Amino acid sequence: MRLDERQYDELRKIEIQAGYITHPEGSVLISAGNTKVICNASIEDRVPPFLRGEGKGWITAEYSMLPRATAQRTIRESSKGKVTGRTMEIQRLIGRALRAVVDLEKLGERTIWIDCDVIQADGGTRTASITGAFVAMTLAIQKLQSEGVLKENPITDYLAAISVGIDSKQGLLLDLNYEEDSSAEVDMNVIMTGAGRFVELQGTGEEATFSREQLNGLLDLAEKGIKELIEKQKAVTGEVIE
Amino acid sequence: MRLDERQYDELRKIEIQAGYITHPEGSVLISAGNTKVICNASIEDRVPPFLRGEGKGWITAEYSMLPRATAQRTIRESSKGKVTGRTMEIQRLIGRALRAVVDLEKLGERTIWIDCDVIQADGGTRTASITGAFVAMTLAIQKLQSEGVLKENPITDYLAAISVGIDSKQGLLLDLNYEEDSSAEVDMNVIMTGAGRFVELQGTGEEATFSREQLNGLLDLAEKGIKELIEKQKAVTGEVIE
Amino acid sequence: MRLDERQYDELRKIEIQAGYITHPEGSVLISAGNTKVICNASIEDRVPPFLRGEGKGWITAEYSMLPRATAQRTIRESSKGKVTGRTMEIQRLIGRALRAVVDLEKLGERTIWIDCDVIQADGGTRTASITGAFVAMTLAIQKLQSEGVLKENPITDYLAAISVGIDSKQGLLLDLNYEEDSSAEVDMNVIMTGAGRFVELQGTGEEATFSREQLNGLLDLAEKGIKELIEKQKAVTGEVIE
Amino acid sequence: MRLDERQYDELRKIEIQAGYITHPEGSVLISAGNTKVICNASIEDRVPPFLRGEGKGWITAEYSMLPRATAQRTIRESSKGKVTGRTMEIQRLIGRALRAVVDLEKLGERTIWIDCDVIQADGGTRTASITGAFVAMTLAIQKLQSEGVLKENPITDYLAAISVGIDSKQGLLLDLNYEEDSSAEVDMNVIMTGAGRFVELQGTGEEATFSREQLNGLLDLAEKGIKELIEKQKAVTGEVIE
Amino acid sequence: MRLDERQYDELRKIEIQAGYITHPEGSVLISAGNTKVICNASIEDRVPPFLRGEGKGWITAEYSMLPRATAQRTIRESSKGKVTGRTMEIQRLIGRALRAVVDLEKLGERTIWIDCDVIQADGGTRTASITGAFVAMTLAIQKLQSEGVLKENPITDYLAAISVGIDSKQGLLLDLNYEEDSSAEVDMNVIMTGAGRFVELQGTGEEATFSREQLNGLLDLAEKGIKELIEKQKAVTGEVIE
Amino acid sequence: MRLDERQYDELRKIEIQAGYITHPEGSVLISAGNTKVICNASIEDRVPPFLRGEGKGWITAEYSMLPRATAQRTIRESSKGKVTGRTMEIQRLIGRALRAVVDLEKLGERTIWIDCDVIQADGGTRTASITGAFVAMTLAIQKLQSEGVLKENPITDYLAAISVGIDSKQGLLLDLNYEEDSSAEVDMNVIMTGAGRFVELQGTGEEATFSREQLNGLLDLAEKGIKELIEKQKAVTGEVIE
Repeated sequence: MRLDERQYDELRKIEIQAGYITHPEGSVLISAGNTKVICNASIEDRVPPFLRGEGKGWITAEYSMLPRATAQRTIRESSKGKVTGRTMEIQRLIGRALRAVVDLEKLGERTIWIDCDVIQADGGTRTASITGAFVAMTLAIQKLQSEGVLKENPITDYLAAISVGIDSKQGLLLDLNYEEDSSAEVDMNVIMTGAGRFVELQGTGEEATFSREQLNGLLDLAEKGIKELIEKQKAVTGEVIE
Repeated sequence: MRLDERQYDELRKIEIQAGYITHPEGSVLISAGNTKVICNASIEDRVPPFLRGEGKGWITAEYSMLPRATAQRTIRESSKGKVTGRTMEIQRLIGRALRAVVDLEKLGERTIWIDCDVIQADGGTRTASITGAFVAMTLAIQKLQSEGVLKENPITDYLAAISVGIDSKQGLLLDLNYEEDSSAEVDMNVIMTGAGRFVELQGTGEEATFSREQLNGLLDLAEKGIKELIEKQKAVTGEVIE
Repeated sequence: MRLDERQYDELRKIEIQAGYITHPEGSVLISAGNTKVICNASIEDRVPPFLRGEGKGWITAEYSMLPRATAQRTIRESSKGKVTGRTMEIQRLIGRALRAVVDLEKLGERTIWIDCDVIQADGGTRTASITGAFVAMTLAIQKLQSEGVLKENPITDYLAAISVGIDSKQGLLLDLNYEEDSSAEVDMNVIMTGAGRFVELQGTGEEATFSREQLNGLLDLAEKGIKELIEKQKAVTGEVIE
Repeated sequence: MRLDERQYDELRKIEIQAGYITHPEGSVLISAGNTKVICNASIEDRVPPFLRGEGKGWITAEYSMLPRATAQRTIRESSKGKVTGRTMEIQRLIGRALRAVVDLEKLGERTIWIDCDVIQADGGTRTASITGAFVAMTLAIQKLQSEGVLKENPITDYLAAISVGIDSKQGLLLDLNYEEDSSAEVDMNVIMTGAGRFVELQGTGEEATFSREQLNGLLDLAEKGIKELIEKQKAVTGEVIE
Repeated sequence: MRLDERQYDELRKIEIQAGYITHPEGSVLISAGNTKVICNASIEDRVPPFLRGEGKGWITAEYSMLPRATAQRTIRESSKGKVTGRTMEIQRLIGRALRAVVDLEKLGERTIWIDCDVIQADGGTRTASITGAFVAMTLAIQKLQSEGVLKENPITDYLAAISVGIDSKQGLLLDLNYEEDSSAEVDMNVIMTGAGRFVELQGTGEEATFSREQLNGLLDLAEKGIKELIEKQKAVTGEVIE
Repeated sequence: MRLDERQYDELRKIEIQAGYITHPEGSVLISAGNTKVICNASIEDRVPPFLRGEGKGWITAEYSMLPRATAQRTIRESSKGKVTGRTMEIQRLIGRALRAVVDLEKLGERTIWIDCDVIQADGGTRTASITGAFVAMTLAIQKLQSEGVLKENPITDYLAAISVGIDSKQGLLLDLNYEEDSSAEVDMNVIMTGAGRFVELQGTGEEATFSREQLNGLLDLAEKGIKELIEKQKAVTGEVIE
């Protein structure tokens, strides 16, 4: 039995509150257990220089944590004057994942900015950010469609992300909280579409390694979790894909 | 009548939700109308180098806005690699104000870090930050007292802040929202104690000036607002000063 | 009696030397006792991006101290790679104050850059900077008028600034030097026009507070000092306002 | 048939030249086709602050490209004043991977710095860096052993990395060059030990997705390549593990 | 005849005003024609980390220009957040030159900070800085000696610097002003001791070259100028070397 | 006899390997004893803003060292976030030197970027960089000529650089290695053309000084070395000047 009394293949309690902040075109507060992330989607009517005149849109993301999202206060990246490698890695990941389920030509020459701000952290902040960001982005796109700005739906599939891992005592685990993540030997983030196809797979041995067989166990677990997450998303966005 | 149907001397709806984030020693979400700020207080068991060995504590603050706290997305200061002058001015102000109502010797050799993160902005973010920060700090100090770490209460008085201003058409106004603030000729932030004494006074003509008589009208209005805010604070913290 | 034998309501010796540096359109060296600031005004024939095509001008300021302006050498901001919060606060203040007494439409689409460089500091550097900057700016504008570039005088009033404060032993004081400023409980900077109207008011309790009555005493003292400063300015610029 | 006439499961020509630079404790120039990386390992007799007094060592890596490693000159990160997200991601990856095959307690309180400098790039620079870095690190450790500084061999297994991908026309491919990488729909980097266990797995759909079946094909291909790379490494280092 | 009616081998008017700023241990305002530099010397009772415990002192310099020292306003290095290559080159040069005429062991474990701030520029700012810095440093050292802190005079010789150049029409020139410097084909800075020995020699063809014979002419001219400068220095410092 | 058994007027072994990196328009690896520098020349079809529309080209250089080019690992400038003064000084020097032997009007509106990356350092890296950069630049220009892009040869003369110095025991020395450079009292870098004219001369006493007579000895020695270097260059480039 896990510390928080979950089964090994059980997600934490997931809540997605839409319209959390009033200004953004799409906004949600996503909670996965004690992890809470504000995901905002903003529409900008132009694209970065490398895409100008290509007739395509772009999706980019920024990720940050409040200093006291964590048990110990962390220094603000604005005070340090630079963004850490971890932050850059996560924001590149979020943007790349969302672009995999959007037809950028149908989006037209506009940029969707995704801001994921972790206000409380308890493990799985990057996967919660992706799962929440997909909803915020979808709400923003639905707004563009309802206003007649977008004629066609550019979203090609659902998208969610989850962590899985291997604990030396408990074996395979779904949706690790901070304490589980800290002691896990192997940590894997899986990003998957509604059709069950991989968008991104990042498995890391933390001073440890894993076998092909263990990999297969982790992927089965992740797939189960992702399906449940996509049901939670649909409860907010309605059916996005016909 | 004001746009949001308030009287000229009427505060916006104030809500202070304690324990908003679980990790910090003190945490509140303060709402003043549509302005929402997460105020967290963290205790660190050491002081900055200039105070070491003096037997005194320190209180310092950081302030930030989420990119979509505003109607138009603003660039993150961490992406720019530097903090703007406005941000620095506000964080210096918050720290200075709180230090005026705390006996730093009674606090002992520890630092209270205040983090004010605006998640939604509609004017008055710096005054809401101060009003919320006082509550978060008080909660953190009460925690230290209940744990027996602090023997004496270092807080010497209540503290709250409010904006007042002069509109060319409507005259004197209490607690300006963003739209009122943008069109005001004169903007003043007043920070006051429960005893009705000034801690800080910042009045600015925006390409305009103001007379001694107008100043007096603004100060009367501010005093009324501050008294009401301190009642809201007491509802959360209880009586802090015997 | 004060340390330098001044009365409580007596300014330090004020000198304003025009044409101190040859390149700028307007240049003065202002001395207030041992505080010495070079104030240069430069004209640039364009405005910042946010004002382009608006038919209005802009005034902006930068402030700096030489490393040995102070008793202990301070590190250069260029060596640190960033400007401190204090510096940003002061340069925003100087620019805002000057804009309050200039009709930016009459100035036309040009920017006045004000550079205040403190070469020797003994308290009151920000108020001396403003008082000197008004003269440098006026000289630069008079040059534009004499060259026929400006048809109308855009200056709407005189402008000067002074510090006042409360000392626990000596009570109210006008024009604090560094030593007085360091021990004062309350420090207030007042920026006022020739017509006696406030442009900016910044009163701060340094781990202390002040009453409404004390505020009134401080403002009376500041008004007296400002009137004397404006006479000093007129001796350099002549009558600026008809 | 591929552009450079390789079979779909054929590595590029791999060369590992030991002792390339004279100063480092371990140094190799690794070539994988036209990709050339200088990998240097440096021993420092202390560990980062978070490990002090723990009796363990640390391995950390830095990665950089010469401006003309690429077809178009790229701006130096030192000129930009900051390291890109891509660079940070790669250097974190290299360090993490090496730490998975070293017993940090046997290493003792010392740090191994790995510097991977790409002097010519044609795809696969991060995997070539890891494969070369393992050799440079091994040479440095062998030097410590031959000097009697290290009593035991801290290396627990061989380590190499390779890229695999899916091309829309050619299907699965091993060891992609720059041109193949640019047009691939799916790109995966696999880091594996001599025992055939995964250390890290990073699969990314580039505006595309991939199925579980495709994943399995990619992993088979990677495993074949890694085995061949480890033979090349052994030719330089000798048998490292008994 | 030169534009300012000087002979080809004639210095501009040199003035050295001692005690210009009150706080520094040594302070001069040096004028060379229209070039004006404040040179301050500060004593710090410790040395940089690389010299600790060596029983030797250190001399280091910083150089800066006010934004309107020049005909066109230049951006502050503190605003840009970095120091230009030109500035770094000059400050390294000043420090190196002064160290050549000071016995650092006799100076003891203390640092002399030299700050050269150009308030008005008309060519030759780096050579004027060195010539003025020698005087400021000497005054600071004399202060240490008069206070009994230094038992022995650590200064081993006088030091001054001058520019010489070759103009395509006028030939060899001593002490170039800004206009002459801009059109010169060859520009050389010479730093020399009272004994006529070189400390530093920097000759540069500006998209031009120069012969050995021309070099000899330039050096003769520089030597003449340096002798005159050292006389000016002695008038301020008295005889420094017995 | 010198440590490496050279005569006082003997160069180290010089090797210039052309076409070292495939992407740049010109590329060499230059070795001077154990000092090894990759020099790449890149052509860009535009000029910096200050030259636009002038019909002239530009040549600029960047210089860097790999962290383990040196006996002790040095921190990367990209990690520090800023370029050191030494680096800036060297890159300004390289660019200036090359521009002295190129007719920038004949080059046309294009920029030649020179990248000098020291992969192994044993003294004389800046002079080896210049000597190698001239060859890389020449190869790039010859490529432009062979492609018919350039009609005329813009190179006006050969260019090479060498260090000379004075050792307290051994006297005058040509081409100092790291150990000799560290103990030399006087260090001079000489940049000279094929016609024997100076382009740049930088002589520095390291806490020492030098006489006119010593200067003449150093210059004779440098001239000898430069002539030999230019022969080495010609073996790679062929005769560049008719």
